Parts: sequence; C-alpha cells; structure tokens
Amino acid sequence: MKLLFVGDVVGSPGRDMVSEYVPMLKKKYQPAMTIINGENAASGRGITEKIYKQFLHAGADMVTLGNHSWDNREIFQFIDDAKALVRPANYPEGTPGVGIQFHTVMQKTIAVINLQGTTFLPPLDDPFRKADELIEMAKKKTSIIFVDFHAEATSEKLAMGWYLDGRVTAVVGTHTHVQTADQRVLPNGTAYLTDVGMTGPYNEILGMSKEAVIKRFLTQLPVRFEVPKDGPTQLSACLITIDPKSGKATKIERILINQDNPFTPET
Amino acid sequence: MKLLFVGDVVGSPGRDMVSEYVPMLKKKYQPAMTIINGENAASGRGITEKIYKQFLHAGADMVTLGNHSWDNREIFQFIDDAKALVRPANYPEGTPGVGIQFHTVMQKTIAVINLQGTTFLPPLDDPFRKADELIEMAKKKTSIIFVDFHAEATSEKLAMGWYLDGRVTAVVGTHTHVQTADQRVLPNGTAYLTDVGMTGPYNEILGMSKEAVIKRFLTQLPVRFEVPKDGPTQLSACLITIDPKSGKATKIERILINQDNPFTPET
Amino acid sequence: MKLLFVGDVVGSPGRDMVSEYVPMLKKKYQPAMTIINGENAASGRGITEKIYKQFLHAGADMVTLGNHSWDNREIFQFIDDAKALVRPANYPEGTPGVGIQFHTVMQKTIAVINLQGTTFLPPLDDPFRKADELIEMAKKKTSIIFVDFHAEATSEKLAMGWYLDGRVTAVVGTHTHVQTADQRVLPNGTAYLTDVGMTGPYNEILGMSKEAVIKRFLTQLPVRFEVPKDGPTQLSACLITIDPKSGKATKIERILINQDNPFTPET
Amino acid sequence: MKLLFVGDVVGSPGRDMVSEYVPMLKKKYQPAMTIINGENAASGRGITEKIYKQFLHAGADMVTLGNHSWDNREIFQFIDDAKALVRPANYPEGTPGVGIQFHTVMQKTIAVINLQGTTFLPPLDDPFRKADELIEMAKKKTSIIFVDFHAEATSEKLAMGWYLDGRVTAVVGTHTHVQTADQRVLPNGTAYLTDVGMTGPYNEILGMSKEAVIKRFLTQLPVRFEVPKDGPTQLSACLITIDPKSGKATKIERILINQDNPFTPET
Ligand SMILES: [Fe+2]
Ligand SMILES: [Fe+2]
Ligand SMILES: [Fe+2]
Ligand SMILES: [Fe+2]
Ligand SMILES: [Fe+2]
Ligand SMILES: [Fe+2]
Ligand SMILES: [Fe+2]
Ligand SMILES: [Fe+2]
Repeated sequence: MKLLFVGDVVGSPGRDMVSEYVPMLKKKYQPAMTIINGENAASGRGITEKIYKQFLHAGADMVTLGNHSWDNREIFQFIDDAKALVRPANYPEGTPGVGIQFHTVMQKTIAVINLQGTTFLPPLDDPFRKADELIEMAKKKTSIIFVDFHAEATSEKLAMGWYLDGRVTAVVGTHTHVQTADQRVLPNGTAYLTDVGMTGPYNEILGMSKEAVIKRFLTQLPVRFEVPKDGPTQLSACLITIDPKSGKATKIERILINQDNPFTPET
Repeated sequence: MKLLFVGDVVGSPGRDMVSEYVPMLKKKYQPAMTIINGENAASGRGITEKIYKQFLHAGADMVTLGNHSWDNREIFQFIDDAKALVRPANYPEGTPGVGIQFHTVMQKTIAVINLQGTTFLPPLDDPFRKADELIEMAKKKTSIIFVDFHAEATSEKLAMGWYLDGRVTAVVGTHTHVQTADQRVLPNGTAYLTDVGMTGPYNEILGMSKEAVIKRFLTQLPVRFEVPKDGPTQLSACLITIDPKSGKATKIERILINQDNPFTPET
Repeated sequence: MKLLFVGDVVGSPGRDMVSEYVPMLKKKYQPAMTIINGENAASGRGITEKIYKQFLHAGADMVTLGNHSWDNREIFQFIDDAKALVRPANYPEGTPGVGIQFHTVMQKTIAVINLQGTTFLPPLDDPFRKADELIEMAKKKTSIIFVDFHAEATSEKLAMGWYLDGRVTAVVGTHTHVQTADQRVLPNGTAYLTDVGMTGPYNEILGMSKEAVIKRFLTQLPVRFEVPKDGPTQLSACLITIDPKSGKATKIERILINQDNPFTPET
Repeated sequence: MKLLFVGDVVGSPGRDMVSEYVPMLKKKYQPAMTIINGENAASGRGITEKIYKQFLHAGADMVTLGNHSWDNREIFQFIDDAKALVRPANYPEGTPGVGIQFHTVMQKTIAVINLQGTTFLPPLDDPFRKADELIEMAKKKTSIIFVDFHAEATSEKLAMGWYLDGRVTAVVGTHTHVQTADQRVLPNGTAYLTDVGMTGPYNEILGMSKEAVIKRFLTQLPVRFEVPKDGPTQLSACLITIDPKSGKATKIERILINQDNPFTPET
C-alpha cells in the first residue's frame, strides 16, 4: 500500500504542476492515498475553496496546511466544512478547522495529522504533546498515521521523527521549500524525511521572485513578494510504502520533477 | 578538475568517518582540492589545533567553520597561524582569523570563502556585501571560488546562490546538518546545494544525543547535549566538477555514506 | 492592605540590597506581604536553597522566578519542597515546582502566580490560557491575586495586563531588568507595571559586567558574563495598595533605590 | 540649554497630542531644540510628508524614525529632500535618507543621530560601529550629539548608553513604546533613558487596538492592527539639560502626560 505526498504547492505555477503531474504520478505509482500541502497555493499565501477543490479534482484525497493557512481570509469561510482539509493541530483550542482527518480506502483507514513547529515560528501549543494526544485518538481507528510536520528547524523535525518512531507510519516535513536527501525508515518502522520540498517555480526562491527576495536581503526594506508566473517549474513529493497490517512503513522514496530531473512515466 | 567538500564534522564519530572515508573518496574521485567544515569537530563545539591538523593529515586542504567556531577557546591560540583555516568572513573587523584563504594546486589557485547567514542567527555584517567584497579581491588571483555559506534559512541560502550565480564556482550551504537534494548548476555556472549535511552519528539529532534533544523540546529545561560515541555514523559531502579555465562549475553531485547508503570504492 | 514586590535580584550585590533594604521597606510601608523575584539571585543564574532561605529570612513571604529558574541545577533538589517558591506556571506539565502558591496573612489569602512570556523567549504553554486556568482555581480561595509576568516584549506584557484587568489584583512584569514608568491602576481595578526592574549592580548592564556585555555586542564572540562584586547598587520594587474585600488594587507606586534616588526611611 | 525629545507618535491620537502639547511644553521648558520620533505617525505605520511638515509646524526641529520608517511608501518620495528627517543610520549603504542631521540654533550646532538595534530586530549594520563612525564625523562640527537608539532589548540599549558615555550628549531609547524610569546622567556626562515611551492612545497596547493585540496573542491568527481614534491619550517625552560648552548633559527628566499625570503649564 502506497501513499503519495506532494510538498508545498506555490501559486499557479505550483497548481499547474499538480494538475499535470499528480495524475501521472498516481498512474505510475498507484498510491492508495494522495496528500498535498497547500499552504501556499493561493499566490503563495494560503488557499481558497476553489483551489482546494481543484486539488481534490486533480487526485488529492487530503490537503494539509501550515503557518500560511490563514493568509487568504477565504479560509475562514470554508475550512469548517472541508472534510479533506487539515490545518496544524497545535493551534489553540477554538481555532477553525481540525488538525487530524481520516480517509478510508480499500477498507483501510489512514489518519492524517498536521503539526507546526515552534522553533523560529510563532509559539503554538507544544507539537510533541499534541502529537501524543492525536496519535492516541487515531490509534482507536487505525494504525496507519501520516504526519506532515510543518517546521523550520532541522533539530525540531528530526526530534519529532525520532519521538514518533514506531508510533506512526510517517513523519514528513514541510515549510522550508527545499527537499532534503535524508529519507529513511527509522529503526521502529516510521518513514522519515526532514522536508519534502516545494512545488512551483524552479528558478526562484521558495517560489517567490528571486529579485524581490534578494532585494529584501540587500536593503532590509519592505519588498512585496510575488510568485512569478513564467519560467521553469518543479514538483517535490515523496512516496511511502506501507505494510497495511502493521501500519509500519517499509520504504520511502523522494520524487523530484524539474528540468534537471525529468519525469519518467514508467516505473 | 574536481573539488570535494565534506559537511559539518561532529565530534569523534565524525572525525573517525573523515579518517576512514576521505582517503577513499580522494582515491575514487581524485579531487584537486578537499575542504572540510570543522565547526563541530571538537565534541560538537568548535575545533582544536590537534583536530585541525588531523583533518589536514586525513587529506583536507582547507577547513571551514561557522557559528560554533569559537566554542572551544583553543581556537584563539592557533587560528591566526592556521594557513588552511577559514572562519565566517562577516564577523566584525578585528575578529581573529580570516574569511578567505587561497590554495594552489596543479598551477591553479582556488579561493575558499566562508560566510555566515544572519537569519535566525546572530547579527553579523551583511554576508551579501561581504561576498561582493571578497569576490572582487579573489578575482584578482583566480576565477575558481568556493563559498561555504553557513546559514539556517533556506531563503537566505538560495538568495546567496542566485546572487552569486556566475560570479563564483560554487555556493554550498552548511549548518542545518541535513543534506538537501537540490544540487544543481545554476544558469550562469555556479554549482549550488542548500546544505551538504553533517558527518557524524547517524541515529542522533544533528549529531547530538537524540534523547537529550527530545528532552529539551519536551521540557524546555536546560539539557546538556553530548555527541554519543557509539552507534552507526554517516558522512555527507559533495563533489563539484569545475572547468578550470573559466572557473565555472559543470556538475555537482551529492555524496552520502551511511548504513542505508554504503560507499562503493569504484566510480 | 499593601503588597511589596522586589524585582529580579542579581547575584550577591542584589542579595545585599535585599538584606539591607527589605527590612527598612517593610518598616516604612508595612506591607502585608512581600514577594521577591529571585531568578538571577545565584551569580545571575538561578537560585540556591540557601539564597531562597535568606530571602525568607530577610522578610520575603514568597519568591518568584523566570526563564533563569533552572540555571543553577540545585533548584531541582529543593523546588518541590519549597512552599514559598513559584516558577513560571506555563512550563509543560511535569515540570518540577508549581506556578501558583497561596500565602495567608491577617486572615486574608493571597495567590501568587508566575507566568512567562513566549515572545522572544522559548515556546512554553500559552500564558494567557494558563492565566485563565489558574485564576479560576485561585478564585475559589481568594480574590487577591498577584501575577509576576516574566516577559520580554512590552506588547505581550501590556496584553496580559489588559487581558486580566478586573480579574486579578496586579500584573507586574519582570525580566527586562529596567523599571518602567507606566505604573497605573487599570479601569477595572488591576494594578499594572510593565517591568519592576532589577536589584543589583547600578553601573552595569542588567546586573552583568558592562565591559563583558559590550564586548559581546562588538565581537559576537562568546563572552562569559559575571556579576561585578563592587560598585554602586540599586533596588527596584513596587508597592501595591489593595482593597482586601474586593481584591482590587487602589494604588501602585514604584520604588527605586540607588545613589541617584536615595532611600528615605520616613513615608 | 535644553533639548526636548518626544517618543514614538502613533497615528492621529498621537499627532493630536503633539499639536496640543508640544507648543505648551516648549513654552514651559524653553528647549533650544525639539525632536520627535515619528516612525508610527501615519496610522501606526511610517510617516507621510504632510505629517512630517505638521511636526515641524507644531514646533519640532527634527524628526527621527525607526524600523517602521518604510511602512508608508510615501517616505521614498520625500525622504531625500527632508532636511530635518533622520532614519536609522545603520541601514545598508544606498538606503534613501540619512542617519545624521545637524541643526543650528543660537550659534550652537546639535547633531541628531538615529540608530536601530539588531537584537530581536532585522540584521542591519552594527549600530555600535556605526555610532563610532558618525560621532567621529559629528565631532568635527559640534560636541552636542543626541542619539535616538531605536531598539528592543534593554541589554542592547544599556550597552549603547555605556558605550557612548562621555562621547555624546544623550542616548535615549525608542521602540518599546513604554517609558522606562531609569533616566540618569552616566558618569562621563551622557544623559541616558532606556525608552522614552510613546505618544498616542493611553488605553490601548503600544497605541494599537488592545482587542486586536490580545486576539493575536490568543489565536496566533493574522489580525489587522488599527490605531483606535477615540479614548484617552498620552504624550511621552524627556527633557535634557546640556552644558553647551562641553556638550555634556547635566540633567535628564522624564515627561509623561496622560489622565493620571496631567500637564501643569508652570514649571
Ligand atoms: Fe510553504
Ligand atoms: Fe510554511
Ligand atoms: Fe554545524
Ligand atoms: Fe552551525
Ligand atoms: Fe531576570
Ligand atoms: Fe528573565
Ligand atoms: Fe514605534
Ligand atoms: Fe519601532
């Protein structure tokens, strides 16, 4: 049983990559479930209901978010009705939306948890204890648990991976927009990858105009960041192979599609 | 012409990996120059003269540093006499040591620059302007310039890569201790990798005891971090192929040696 | 009914000021209760059992702490037995010590709560919700509630003051070591002061050697901070007048004793 | 010879306080020069040319800024022509505007320097070395030098005060919007105050709607901060007495005008 996870989709270049490649990736790898991180899908800032539905239409079964969840205020209109949308679970009680959702396919239920780190990021509730709490809840329904840990610091992400090793199927990081090369199955059966990377412009910085980002670093003045609409693009993802009985991962593979790493339809 | 760069060596497990594999890597890839980041070489904190010399003896031609340069106070005793040691160049004027060194091999001179980011790190001088200044100086001697950019944020590292594209041979990141998978030659001939990763314990967090790091996240109490002496280890590096005439990079490859990615002596 | 609160006592110069002036302040103002913040009492870093007892002997009824609570490891030996010691309440569950204590005097019970901010400080539990929880608990015993809010940012401190206005007797800030001049009784009866200031060396920086602190800013190198043992000293405090029936504050006055503001025994 | 300095003016409530009280303060204290920090004058974010001119019309001789200098993009239109406007000097070379201006009154020249801290703030050039450089330049014209140090951390502000003691007339902090009570003349003749405080709404948080700020802390969601237009207001300032011959300060007094501290026209 396989699970496909696509990293932070940025703006229309990212959405175009999803529309184009997710169907091909599903055809090639036949994942039982597909998850997309959509926190930057609307012009780099948040997500709209229309985009959320486009992701489902393109083949996603679940959409995760992150610190940019709330940048587009439309989220508050539809998040509570979106059954396949998960925002970081460790926002305070009373926050719209939920931090865990379940998806059932082929008589198997998969729990999807989204958590946000607190190192170099705003002070949310402790993601480690929140993980404990949600895993305990999820375990009543299933042993297949996927965690999108949206965090900045490698220390915090690795800590979460090791902390949950053997208790969840996978801990995959998002947020830094750069794919890491440390995919592995930890000793107790949890697939781990520090960051899956981003989906969007290939020749920009985190998906935003590189001229703008460089200008900000050079001047420290306010600069408006936009997602450039043309230029080459990339898709970053990972594929996790799961033993459906135990919920343990047996394999995790990185997927990177761009001009330097072209997609090959055959396995 | 090739250049081998080994990422942050952590403690004795990291040093042992250097002693064991650097000679084999040199035999396999025949790099004209080998550089090692040694900011964590002494028990995870700084470097001693003895370790610096061990690195040279193991085959390094140059040693770079980072924010941990000064953790072991012995550095102040030998840094000014160490001809193959480079600390981040953008520490304030008057800081011991230098931020650029030159190495000549096969009648070619290679400049090695070390810079430190300022995002999520202490406020040093602007690394972008310091890069401009050092590159101008280096260009008088050579067009082969290697930059170890020791920084936390992917945005700052990517910005440096794109900012220097076409002006230096390579910009390779260090500091996060996790190798990224985004190695590429940028359009104007600069090899780029967000982070080369670390060399040391494989089953710990950034090379430090995972139990200790997790305890710190769970308790927010002071916890002493140590480099565990046993357990599996890894080496992280990259190999850059350079056109010696132009100083442009033509290729960059990641190297990762651990139990999941065993070393193969043949090319 | 009056309450005297003495701000962050730093090292032996601070402790000497406590021994000398707290008895005189008590004589002058006749407070029903005296509280001392002791997070820096042991050489600037944490507190020992001996010092804690010295504070009680000098006239304190309660000692509060902050982010430096744990710097001296002796704390773990005695905190759970110390009936008049309060550490920030929003450390995670399971942390040694407690975040609220009660003191009864003249048939009136006073609750003392210590909270730590999370802006520019480590990510503890949300201090606002923790305040709600502790106030609800305290209200069952008393309407006189004193809050030492140990925080960096003026925004967070003012937010706590206004958030708790009318629900507690006083919100007084600590941690920045500089007394602010904004003491006031908020509209619903809560006495407020952004920071009460520190008690210790007068001609140094936050109580630490000014040469060392300046050197750190100038060099960004590791510098050991020590509390200078000689030179002029100061004591920072505030005095809150309480209506014991309602638990509302009716007045808050700043107290500053140093060579520029000598103590006058008479009222 | 006296110098009046009014702290961060926030929005129209702050500007109204300036229009109302600066003339009265000038009448009462007869300062030779009046300086206003205007970084929040336009709805809390930046300044416009119209507001800048209003400040001059209300009696200011110079206007200083801070990290919010650039929030209102109109600044870029007029800053280079504004002869009485100073922005933090340690922005990178090439930044519009200047970091030092001179004002001559009664045959005496006063240099006004604006610097921005780098602790808990973006990584500008080192404010300490920039101070050295500007003071050296200013000394060629005058020994009366006023420094508005716009910074967050008390450690950095105190460090600047002690670092410049004896070399400038005054170091007064801005940015935290809360007046501190530590005004003093340092041993070598520099007047010092960690923060002069803000001018604007009295019952809000840093001049912004308290409901909005509290909501942000409670929810960690994006909240738009506005300057409430009604409610009581305050003015925060300080008055420095200078020996015009030596440029040394002989006295520094805090000024706070609000409903709890009403203004008295007579001295
Ligand atoms: Fe993202
Ligand atoms: Fe993010
Ligand atoms: Fe490192
Ligand atoms: Fe580092
Ligand atoms: Fe303190
Ligand atoms: Fe503190
Ligand atoms: Fe301000
Ligand atoms: Fe500011």
